[in-house]
Amino acid sequence: MFKRKFFLPLLGILFMIPAIVKASGDAAGADAAHGTSHAVIVLAFVALIVVLAKIAGSVAEKFNQVSVLGELMLGVLLGIPVLFGIHFFDAFKTDEFVLLFSEFAVILLLFQTGLESDLHKMSRVGVPAFLVAIIGVVAPFVIGMYLVGPWLLPGLSSNAYLFLGATLTATSVGITARVFKDLKMLQSRTSQIVLGAAVIDDVLGLLILAVVAAMVTAGHVSTGEVVVIATKALVFLAASIAIGRLIAPRLGKYLSKVHAGIGMKMAMALLFCLGYAYLSTLVGLAPIVGAFAAGLLLDPVHFKRFRSPRLVRDIEDAMGECTQDDVKACVHQAVEEHRHRHVEDLIEGVAQWVVPVFFVITGLQVNLAVLADINVLLVALGLTIAAIFGKVISGVAAGKGADWKVVGVGMVPRGEVGLIFANVGKALGVVGDEAFAAIVIMIIITTIFTPVVLPMIAKMNKKKEEAQPAQA
Amino acid sequence: MFKRKFFLPLLGILFMIPAIVKASGDAAGADAAHGTSHAVIVLAFVALIVVLAKIAGSVAEKFNQVSVLGELMLGVLLGIPVLFGIHFFDAFKTDEFVLLFSEFAVILLLFQTGLESDLHKMSRVGVPAFLVAIIGVVAPFVIGMYLVGPWLLPGLSSNAYLFLGATLTATSVGITARVFKDLKMLQSRTSQIVLGAAVIDDVLGLLILAVVAAMVTAGHVSTGEVVVIATKALVFLAASIAIGRLIAPRLGKYLSKVHAGIGMKMAMALLFCLGYAYLSTLVGLAPIVGAFAAGLLLDPVHFKRFRSPRLVRDIEDAMGECTQDDVKACVHQAVEEHRHRHVEDLIEGVAQWVVPVFFVITGLQVNLAVLADINVLLVALGLTIAAIFGKVISGVAAGKGADWKVVGVGMVPRGEVGLIFANVGKALGVVGDEAFAAIVIMIIITTIFTPVVLPMIAKMNKKKEEAQPAQA
Repeated sequence: MFKRKFFLPLLGILFMIPAIVKASGDAAGADAAHGTSHAVIVLAFVALIVVLAKIAGSVAEKFNQVSVLGELMLGVLLGIPVLFGIHFFDAFKTDEFVLLFSEFAVILLLFQTGLESDLHKMSRVGVPAFLVAIIGVVAPFVIGMYLVGPWLLPGLSSNAYLFLGATLTATSVGITARVFKDLKMLQSRTSQIVLGAAVIDDVLGLLILAVVAAMVTAGHVSTGEVVVIATKALVFLAASIAIGRLIAPRLGKYLSKVHAGIGMKMAMALLFCLGYAYLSTLVGLAPIVGAFAAGLLLDPVHFKRFRSPRLVRDIEDAMGECTQDDVKACVHQAVEEHRHRHVEDLIEGVAQWVVPVFFVITGLQVNLAVLADINVLLVALGLTIAAIFGKVISGVAAGKGADWKVVGVGMVPRGEVGLIFANVGKALGVVGDEAFAAIVIMIIITTIFTPVVLPMIAKMNKKKEEAQPAQA
Repeated sequence: MFKRKFFLPLLGILFMIPAIVKASGDAAGADAAHGTSHAVIVLAFVALIVVLAKIAGSVAEKFNQVSVLGELMLGVLLGIPVLFGIHFFDAFKTDEFVLLFSEFAVILLLFQTGLESDLHKMSRVGVPAFLVAIIGVVAPFVIGMYLVGPWLLPGLSSNAYLFLGATLTATSVGITARVFKDLKMLQSRTSQIVLGAAVIDDVLGLLILAVVAAMVTAGHVSTGEVVVIATKALVFLAASIAIGRLIAPRLGKYLSKVHAGIGMKMAMALLFCLGYAYLSTLVGLAPIVGAFAAGLLLDPVHFKRFRSPRLVRDIEDAMGECTQDDVKACVHQAVEEHRHRHVEDLIEGVAQWVVPVFFVITGLQVNLAVLADINVLLVALGLTIAAIFGKVISGVAAGKGADWKVVGVGMVPRGEVGLIFANVGKALGVVGDEAFAAIVIMIIITTIFTPVVLPMIAKMNKKKEEAQPAQA
């Protein structure tokens, strides 16, 4: 039953891939008026990836896993042919158009996460989030620099251990945000703490990278510089949220007067999302931090003057034919609720299609060949244990009202942030090939760890909760 | 009143531009962990362009113009600073990420147009569409090659006149499709004829370019080659529509079994759209022809097994609380209608935001500096008259049940297709700088001609129709 359902379309689509890749090669030599532009090939590829990702996500769900795990694994699986010398996806893996989609996808995801988070709720978890972030940075750093580094990779310079420790401090919140979303836990105190801690972590990561890079290149750190970087980032976050909350209602009012359609509504929402993503990069923060801040500061009320799409009018029209009073009331309520939810629904319409691209591409970045070296594997194993342990214990700072295990596991993924650290270290010559390969494996495992483990803990907690009232 | 409404936000946003452009320059030198990736800058730029385009479109509507005209004019206006040596937008004009969005936009527009067109209706206008296409190719070609060319640009080779004539034959359907959409005329017989003729024109254009290029390079044309090119294109169109109609219901059934959410629904629709856009380029057709074919062959019934978004469930829930029978009936009807429309609504959600990018970028491509040379202007004027006259008279072949003036004017825009011809001619050395500049001006004028003139004719027709029943 299961097999027939999934196997046929999956197989059919997979068989299309070589044909498409082959054809795209032929096309380059075709004597055609329009030619086959690179853009069109990539667009078709992305469309195919999205359908495959949707299938993979659903397969994961059938096995009681979160769909993001299916998307990640799909990316990893698509990398297998490379081991046999078949380079189908290699061109797309590093294609800048594909990476543009991937970047857009993760920005959109964090914007969505921000939209579904509540600024007041977030500020109430400020203290535990800060503590979680601090412990989650200090613990893996100390373990990496003084324990795992000298023990597993003896004889390296202290700068190398410094970088190894620094790489372990990064947090990549994309995966966790998506897992919380898949588990419908975004509203919980626990997930607010993780999201808050991840934002603080990005500021701390910025400082750590500046410090260790200065230590390696100049041999010392100027306190003034560190203060300037930290101040810039913190002032940006505070000011951008404050200014945004001033501008958003006014801009919403003006733009809805110019045109109250959903096109303008969406345009305004995405201007905030992408504008903030861009602005945050100007102070050295990740674009996803800006996008999250934009989502956080925007409120349904800023969009209340815009129309909702045709359906609402259809139903209002249909209701015009009804005469009973309570009917109007209940339909009106549904419409009103929709009007409030609607920015999120509009973004969801785009995000549902775009976001999986990020996770498939993340999975595709995994170079399976690094798994071949047993020495590297051992170092990677040690690094991974340090990485997971260092972050999981940060959960204890979450305090009451939140599950420390969920918080800790939520902080584990290193993702692209860890890779940035490793790349800077490699460029500075302090991270060697062996260490780099081990870091990559550590990032892969921590990235897949959370989508596997977090749902398990959530399920256990749910069972406990269901059992408790019966006892009480 | 009008001024206050539009001026303030417009001004505010325009003032942001230099700051953003300035900042993006600074960012390149910033000592930052994440840096300011090119992708993020372009994404923020596109978001800004979309908001400006929405404002410009609404301003055009206030002046009783179609909104696409506002978007085009915005692009032209954004090019003005270049005349004063300010190159704000120059980097974006040729930026490949921006062009990717622009290409995606026009593909999405033609997919939408196809979705809103009816295959049976289209096939019923096959004969008039074919005649319109043939006349619309022959007339401007003859006028260009034998009249306007030798008269306005005397002393050139016959190959140069050949290319000039060929350039005048192109039809770019994007503008017209959008004007029909803005005027809510897409369902009319008239617009079906124009769309059909534009698709046939693309096949003819492919042949003409192959023929004239062979004439110029080899001095002769092999009939066999022309037959092969034409057969490939026609077989592709017929086969892709036939195969698509076979695959779509089956794929819809399978994919909806895997996951019935709107994400999968959208993924499937866009796989057809972008897959066909790509496949059409393999036989030398424009990607928009493939996207149009994909829209044409897809039917709401292929998506009937997918869920519609949350709102429908919200309302169904709300209705659960109602007890009266007719209430359920009327809400059910609205929901049912929505379920059928819904693929189009999903695509509209994305298209509303993406499509304006294409028209602003088209306007931005206008190099206002070419307007400075009086000789070029005169040649351009002659070319433009030939271009407009040659296409407008093709409308007479539309026959009964369609307005020949609307058909003729609808065929006028040359857009990017004309530019492709001119560029090939330039590369082959038969189109000189003067002729090229004149062709560019002709393309600009014909591109803006239709959004200005077509609504006027439509309005006059409406008045006549309203007057007639009173007389009868």
